[in-house]
Amino acid sequence: GWARAVRGLLLDVSGVLYDSGADGGVPIAGSAEAVRRIKASGLKLRLCTNETQATRENFVKKLRGLGFDVSVAEVTAPAPAACHILKERGLRPHLLVHDDLVPEFAEIDKTNPNCVVLGDAAENFTYANLNEAFRLLIGMEKPVLISLGRGRYYKETDGLKLDVGAYMKALEYACDVQAEVVGKPSKRFFESALAEMGVPAEQAIMIGDDIVNDVGGAQRCGMRALQVRTGKYRPSDENHPEVKPDAYVNNLAEAVDIILQQL
Amino acid sequence: GWARAVRGLLLDVSGVLYDSGADGGVPIAGSAEAVRRIKASGLKLRLCTNETQATRENFVKKLRGLGFDVSVAEVTAPAPAACHILKERGLRPHLLVHDDLVPEFAEIDKTNPNCVVLGDAAENFTYANLNEAFRLLIGMEKPVLISLGRGRYYKETDGLKLDVGAYMKALEYACDVQAEVVGKPSKRFFESALAEMGVPAEQAIMIGDDIVNDVGGAQRCGMRALQVRTGKYRPSDENHPEVKPDAYVNNLAEAVDIILQQL
Repeated sequence: GWARAVRGLLLDVSGVLYDSGADGGVPIAGSAEAVRRIKASGLKLRLCTNETQATRENFVKKLRGLGFDVSVAEVTAPAPAACHILKERGLRPHLLVHDDLVPEFAEIDKTNPNCVVLGDAAENFTYANLNEAFRLLIGMEKPVLISLGRGRYYKETDGLKLDVGAYMKALEYACDVQAEVVGKPSKRFFESALAEMGVPAEQAIMIGDDIVNDVGGAQRCGMRALQVRTGKYRPSDENHPEVKPDAYVNNLAEAVDIILQQL
Repeated sequence: GWARAVRGLLLDVSGVLYDSGADGGVPIAGSAEAVRRIKASGLKLRLCTNETQATRENFVKKLRGLGFDVSVAEVTAPAPAACHILKERGLRPHLLVHDDLVPEFAEIDKTNPNCVVLGDAAENFTYANLNEAFRLLIGMEKPVLISLGRGRYYKETDGLKLDVGAYMKALEYACDVQAEVVGKPSKRFFESALAEMGVPAEQAIMIGDDIVNDVGGAQRCGMRALQVRTGKYRPSDENHPEVKPDAYVNNLAEAVDIILQQL
């Protein structure tokens, strides 16, 4: 079956470990124990997240507060990946991101911007801020829009929220540009996560609640991928026209049960 | 030439008659006089606008205050066209529109919404309001999104602003739906304007600053169409890959000069 010959697991975080929310979020039943069991088993573990509402430090602090035994060194997230690209190409970003993400860009020159970096800015997605980012882009000879993910929406404890992908599409359309996506489902992003784990794609399984960005993205990199029926999972995902997970599981705990039985 | 055998003119308003703005806007030089000359010539005139920040009554009041001799009966605008469709199909809208547009929907049942109507909501394009519209749509068995226009951006006196089309794209992507567009460049919308004038497409000229929604839309209905070099016109429009106006003119006054010479 799909659980054979595994050496490493990549876990999406929001919707798999916990349901996020302004209240700090709530753990998904059995997930904290599942993370402990993965570590005890000797399997490699990587949190592969599109989280852009906090620095990795604060993100991990929050997860630890919710009972998850995880560390900053185990997190692959879009902002550090974007910083790498910005430095590589000499790009100076205008940031339209969550206030709490800004420290990740502390070392990047942001004067006289020649690109826009878009994250899940949440309350910073104001009419004024969107117009400002738009004007900068449309004023560039060759607009460069870097988007930290392309998710459609996610679930918080108080309901579904539009994700960065929706705002990316708004700016893409207005400026007639195509954003460069950093984070899932970008192949380069998954490949960094695998490299950081030291596990080849064919020995890794991605576990996520997003049929397109987690499951589809990981499969295109040669990994197996499971969809959990937690987080933003909707029954209609099981009829997705393009993506079919290697398996569905009710939650992370069930996935880990099955995988550990096969070790 | 392109000015032969004309019986009616359709004019876009923002960017052709005046540049809009929070300050009330400023007339474009020569446009008020040009409107008077059109009327004196016996040509039929129709304001064909995607304006959705005010009722037609207040819109016309503003234009009259800026020196334009126009009346409510001469305006074809998206909100009344949308009301017609809502009644026809028994749709009850949730409105994400400008406060000042709401009275246009006074007679429409808005309880227990089964569709979302999106206009240029401007300051009402808040994170909270966008999430609300999104949740309603994603909660519908078959989401219906009606968009009052699909413009990318427009120019106000204090700079370029994202138009309704950008927000339409955001919701389309998040909900995986295709919006139904009321207003330019919809064929049905131009055809209503022509019917209201009583002029066939081949005897009408559309004059606008939007290469796609004014010029391209009108040409697809069999009209001739001019692009003015005012409003949101940008020199790069003249290399548009798909749309080529029948002529460029510096402004409305120049267009009217040429047309009246040929009468």
